[in-house]
Amino acid sequence: MKATIERATLLKGLSHVQSVVERRNTIPILSNVLIEAAENGSIRLMATDLDLQIDETIAAAVDQPGAITVSAHTLFDIARKLPEGAQVQLSAAEGRLTVVAGRARFNLATLPRDDFPVIAEGELPTQFELPAEMLKQIIDKTRFAISTEETRYYLNGIFLHVSEDGTGEPVLKAAATDGHRLARVTLPRPEGAEKMPDVIVPRKCVAELRKLLEEVDGSVGVSLSGSKIRFDLGQAILTSKLIDGTFPDYSRVIPTANDKLLKLDPKSFMEGVDRVSTIATEKTRAVKMALDRDKITLSVTSPENGAAAEEVPGDYSALPFEIGFNSRYLLDILGQIEGDLCEVHLADAAAPTLIRENDKSPALYVLMPMRV
Amino acid sequence: MKATIERATLLKGLSHVQSVVERRNTIPILSNVLIEAAENGSIRLMATDLDLQIDETIAAAVDQPGAITVSAHTLFDIARKLPEGAQVQLSAAEGRLTVVAGRARFNLATLPRDDFPVIAEGELPTQFELPAEMLKQIIDKTRFAISTEETRYYLNGIFLHVSEDGTGEPVLKAAATDGHRLARVTLPRPEGAEKMPDVIVPRKCVAELRKLLEEVDGSVGVSLSGSKIRFDLGQAILTSKLIDGTFPDYSRVIPTANDKLLKLDPKSFMEGVDRVSTIATEKTRAVKMALDRDKITLSVTSPENGAAAEEVPGDYSALPFEIGFNSRYLLDILGQIEGDLCEVHLADAAAPTLIRENDKSPALYVLMPMRV
Repeated sequence: MKATIERATLLKGLSHVQSVVERRNTIPILSNVLIEAAENGSIRLMATDLDLQIDETIAAAVDQPGAITVSAHTLFDIARKLPEGAQVQLSAAEGRLTVVAGRARFNLATLPRDDFPVIAEGELPTQFELPAEMLKQIIDKTRFAISTEETRYYLNGIFLHVSEDGTGEPVLKAAATDGHRLARVTLPRPEGAEKMPDVIVPRKCVAELRKLLEEVDGSVGVSLSGSKIRFDLGQAILTSKLIDGTFPDYSRVIPTANDKLLKLDPKSFMEGVDRVSTIATEKTRAVKMALDRDKITLSVTSPENGAAAEEVPGDYSALPFEIGFNSRYLLDILGQIEGDLCEVHLADAAAPTLIRENDKSPALYVLMPMRV
Repeated sequence: MKATIERATLLKGLSHVQSVVERRNTIPILSNVLIEAAENGSIRLMATDLDLQIDETIAAAVDQPGAITVSAHTLFDIARKLPEGAQVQLSAAEGRLTVVAGRARFNLATLPRDDFPVIAEGELPTQFELPAEMLKQIIDKTRFAISTEETRYYLNGIFLHVSEDGTGEPVLKAAATDGHRLARVTLPRPEGAEKMPDVIVPRKCVAELRKLLEEVDGSVGVSLSGSKIRFDLGQAILTSKLIDGTFPDYSRVIPTANDKLLKLDPKSFMEGVDRVSTIATEKTRAVKMALDRDKITLSVTSPENGAAAEEVPGDYSALPFEIGFNSRYLLDILGQIEGDLCEVHLADAAAPTLIRENDKSPALYVLMPMRV
């Protein structure tokens, strides 16, 4: 293999692939990036952690096709430190990769291309396109609710499934929950997704996909089976195994009969919650909300630190009562609401509470209260 | 106590004092800031870790003088989260401090003012002024060499002493070393420092002083005895205990007869060292320098990762030889050299090496080689 690449092109490609590579690996080749130079003047960079695989194609002048694997983080660090505008020459010979740029010369240990594990995609019968903006929205509005509890592995991702909305329109729903809060986004069902199986996309795939989406404007091709999903982002292709588990029937926890409606400005409410929760300790993150006619009082009491209270504006005309929430969870949800008015549908101090911008908004959130 | 303060003023003052307060304290009052409202319309904020004390005066409208102590980090977080332009009312009563701003109200636990430990300065007979710029230079050019080894506590600071330079001119010298490298800055002796005792200023004091200096333009008043030092920065006064130990006679390790002179551009040399050391592992940070007539080759070999080499420009006409350095230490020193030419005075592969911009520059560095 022998090829020459612009430093900026190489750096960008490696920055994508190295982020898939785990820092510590018991299997040495998983630390490596597969570099494959093709006759057509392009180089393919590939990295994997056995569950998630990235495959990126970059432009290069290829003198001699071939393939080799080399430490992804080392090659990335080298590319990062090379001077701007440098031409980087890669050549593989006798089990070593030589990298030459300007007066610098690196000789790197390699592992053979044939040992590199490639995820077998198999058939991916469901195929559809999603605008990058829509995919960003799905991720941003749900990922904060993904559980990090390894024992409930079936909650460690975003659940995607097709369904119908209240009016019988076909929709694609994305949901994430950790048992304390739930986030769901509903979008029109894309063409081709009719027979889509229910899938759970793992957290790491979601994170890498979100990073790659920063550089994508148009549409993203999504292909999936019951066990694998592939995102085609143009230069980069991300393939991931899906979580092999059953996502709970979350629709049961979405309250439909909460009769107390509070309308408020999410921004000033968020600032108030943030301020009063200064007093909260790591252990008790609870913030109390006392609802009275058009008067909402947030408060936190901590035996160690003292007490805080703030009155925030809000429209409320139902019966007065008090309810408590985890301030961190409340802030996560409020941070995702874009307009300057949102609806909080409450029932009582122990019942799940529904938060959404309004009944037209694609995203809705359910939050379990805390005893205060 | 009752007083009203501009949120921005309070925030700035607290940002200075809270940084002296350790996150974890076994003595509860050390987590607190002392707030003292005086009749003359100013508030004094004070914090200490028993070794270092900050005393800051800020403008306020004082209704009722008095003093109280309250958690520094909590009050800082509150001030940070209050809206811009807010007026903050502080009032102490019945062992609580009430903070009111806009619609937010905090009631904080306090500890009595009398329990707050104030460092007794005693007599500080040596007093002089140093331009803030000069003090910044002393710190920036030496602090990286301060040892972090707790067992060699007498190296955990910057050593300040008065002396004479080669021509008999009175000078103030600042030095720091960790046994592997030494940094020294020599400045004209300020008026008033004639009888200054040798002192070692602890690392934490150096760090806090450096932060405060960002906001100071003019001169800083320095007062000291053999056991305490005080920096008067206008609004803020920093008082620290000095390290009670003997700094080694570092002048012995500054080589005077190194006969091999290498001249180079610190910036391109630094970039070269940074690049080849990509290959180095955490354990072996050694970079090898092969000197030949006007040809300097940097190289690193790692059994795991491979090898790297780069030729860097440099003027050298003495006998060819090879020497190794810790790349991290070399980068620290080169990063402090401002001009585009610096001198490296070498003797042999085992002898201390002298690095400086030129023989006029106030700063000089000594670096011990490594076997490679």
